[in-house]
Amino acid sequence: MIPVEEALDRILAVLSPTGAESVALPEGWDRVLARPLEARLTQPPTDVSAMDGYALRAADASVGIGLRVIGASPAGHPFPGSVGPGEAVRIFTGGAVPPGADTILLQEDAAAEGDHVSPTEAPRPGRHIRRAGLDFRAGELLIPAGRRLTARDIGLAAAGNHPWLHVHRRPRIGILATGDEIVLPGEAVPEGGIVSSNAHALAALVRAAGGEPLVLPIAADDRDAIAEAAEAGRRLDLLVTTGGASVGEHDLVQAALAPMGLKLDFWKIAMRPGKPLIFGDLRGTPLLGLPGNPVSALVCAVLFLIPALRRLSGLPAGPVETRPALLGADMAANDRRQDYLRATLAEDAEGGLVATPLPVQDSSMLSALAHAGGLLVRPPHAPAAVAGTVVRVVEFSSLGV
Amino acid sequence: MIPVEEALDRILAVLSPTGAESVALPEGWDRVLARPLEARLTQPPTDVSAMDGYALRAADASVGIGLRVIGASPAGHPFPGSVGPGEAVRIFTGGAVPPGADTILLQEDAAAEGDHVSPTEAPRPGRHIRRAGLDFRAGELLIPAGRRLTARDIGLAAAGNHPWLHVHRRPRIGILATGDEIVLPGEAVPEGGIVSSNAHALAALVRAAGGEPLVLPIAADDRDAIAEAAEAGRRLDLLVTTGGASVGEHDLVQAALAPMGLKLDFWKIAMRPGKPLIFGDLRGTPLLGLPGNPVSALVCAVLFLIPALRRLSGLPAGPVETRPALLGADMAANDRRQDYLRATLAEDAEGGLVATPLPVQDSSMLSALAHAGGLLVRPPHAPAAVAGTVVRVVEFSSLGV
Repeated sequence: MIPVEEALDRILAVLSPTGAESVALPEGWDRVLARPLEARLTQPPTDVSAMDGYALRAADASVGIGLRVIGASPAGHPFPGSVGPGEAVRIFTGGAVPPGADTILLQEDAAAEGDHVSPTEAPRPGRHIRRAGLDFRAGELLIPAGRRLTARDIGLAAAGNHPWLHVHRRPRIGILATGDEIVLPGEAVPEGGIVSSNAHALAALVRAAGGEPLVLPIAADDRDAIAEAAEAGRRLDLLVTTGGASVGEHDLVQAALAPMGLKLDFWKIAMRPGKPLIFGDLRGTPLLGLPGNPVSALVCAVLFLIPALRRLSGLPAGPVETRPALLGADMAANDRRQDYLRATLAEDAEGGLVATPLPVQDSSMLSALAHAGGLLVRPPHAPAAVAGTVVRVVEFSSLGV
Repeated sequence: MIPVEEALDRILAVLSPTGAESVALPEGWDRVLARPLEARLTQPPTDVSAMDGYALRAADASVGIGLRVIGASPAGHPFPGSVGPGEAVRIFTGGAVPPGADTILLQEDAAAEGDHVSPTEAPRPGRHIRRAGLDFRAGELLIPAGRRLTARDIGLAAAGNHPWLHVHRRPRIGILATGDEIVLPGEAVPEGGIVSSNAHALAALVRAAGGEPLVLPIAADDRDAIAEAAEAGRRLDLLVTTGGASVGEHDLVQAALAPMGLKLDFWKIAMRPGKPLIFGDLRGTPLLGLPGNPVSALVCAVLFLIPALRRLSGLPAGPVETRPALLGADMAANDRRQDYLRATLAEDAEGGLVATPLPVQDSSMLSALAHAGGLLVRPPHAPAAVAGTVVRVVEFSSLGV
């Protein structure tokens, strides 16, 4: 049995990021930037007012002394002249500070009468002026490559005057469920049959992680069917198989694909649920074989497929994030396998996260997995722990799954 | 000035969830379920084996005593007969336990020879059997209405045999940026002009929160242009306006839309950034007017538009979630306005979250907002606080923005 970390390292080592595509700015949200984005202009382009008021020369400003208002400088409409001694220009937030002026008299500190204004409080030089380039300067790095673009980043890219973005192509992930006993949802279920849940759960997980899933038709438990389905899954960034529980998990996938040139590692991973995993190369297409059990398949997908998708997407890759939490119940010592217990997550009175393992951990219980908030990680040989002990959890909501 | 909570309550009070639409299962991910989803079948449909081994009668099983293997029960292919005294059936994980058998002899506890098998360890009755309905029973509630469907839920809905799901229609949100000084990204920027960033940042935020954004053409700062643009935004679930900073923020939107039947509240909210907000009803379409400043617009969108989208989407609505964090730097006392400081988020050695306000909080700095991890919430009149004090933060990543 190999440790979880080693299996993940070996998967990530052979994957590389997809190429770039150009998308329109509004399509850039949640995509991964493929090239560093630099500002195409300086923002603000010139000194601007941070408030509504009057632009003037600080040296002129004395309480009760009138200044002549010679024009206005609203945002977008710079005053065409300059401010001389004894003069002021009406200005609004974002309006360009006219040449000659060196401070802003706040509206609420000003008494206006006819075409004159007099300070009720004298401003110091430089007050309420946003200097050119306060936000960013032309040529400055706005967003580094390898970042998944947030709504804020989209705003920043727009402000930097970019109508197009270069992002990594979404990784295309083939999903091949195998098994005689499974049928698609809504189809008649024969005696002993079950409805396929893995493929669509994995497809949703792939979408959540920014990939493009292709759900291949279910392959029966026979070599030809699997070989044919897998052939259709080539030229993808990754082919994921699940299942075939009726005939010794992965043996059949291995037997079916070996003649097609599959080079394969079979790993027993020191984890629970989800011990067996295959990983290999099908003539250039990486292949990840997950267990057929739906809970094991999803837990393995969280631990191995999400990091794989991140690598393929151009994101920094590594294990999925864990958060500290307080154990909500006593737990026995663990054996040599790393345990991923389905757990509810709640907040205690101090706002701390509390993780309580579900009482029944049977790996066939998809409903329990769906109702859980995360996976409580118990390292190999972890000693018995009492409620209140700090543990680490994989939080489903933070992964969008 | 009204408190943030009151403004949010007043917005949520007038919004109601969109109607339902039927979507295919794979389209259900990240949508909000509009009707409770019940299981259409029992899972497992019958007692099944949790392991590979032999199904037999516990009363027959003694170490070293051979039992006749009369057939096999792989998943999907139930053994057609029953298990009598002295008999066993080869069984695989997920295979139906044949009538007569009441326990599973593990493969590793069995010695097989020809068509006989003998236990090397005798199993107790009921071992390694998953009872019919362990996961769920036909008619049982699988997923309640009002839940945003995760990848795990999609798997559960599939397992419950649902090819279709009834979900709330995505709320359609019109976004109307106003201002003489703004141009679309990539267009030539006139002197004093700036590139529109609000509309596309808000559109991305709407998508992150599950809505469907419609970015309306920018309206110049004149009544007719605003009225025309707003007319195009009717029959939407919500119309969001931003800006017009050149002429006293919202006065123009108010003046332009009043003749169209706009009933409006103008609120000064006791918060920073983003004091002014308008909210009203444009002949049946709710209208939310955000500040024109990009940082203020986005902060207000996080605090008011995301909850509004949740309400429209059929989710439980209320303020956006905050998390506890330790203050990373000393802070002065706060005034009467609730402060939302842009802050970096980091993890300390114990795994706790540390929030450190950015040194410059100028509300024009979109780059600072983009680089922040969240908003540090300082309630009105909060006393001075030293580093290490527990504060609450709005975490951007948890909101997908």
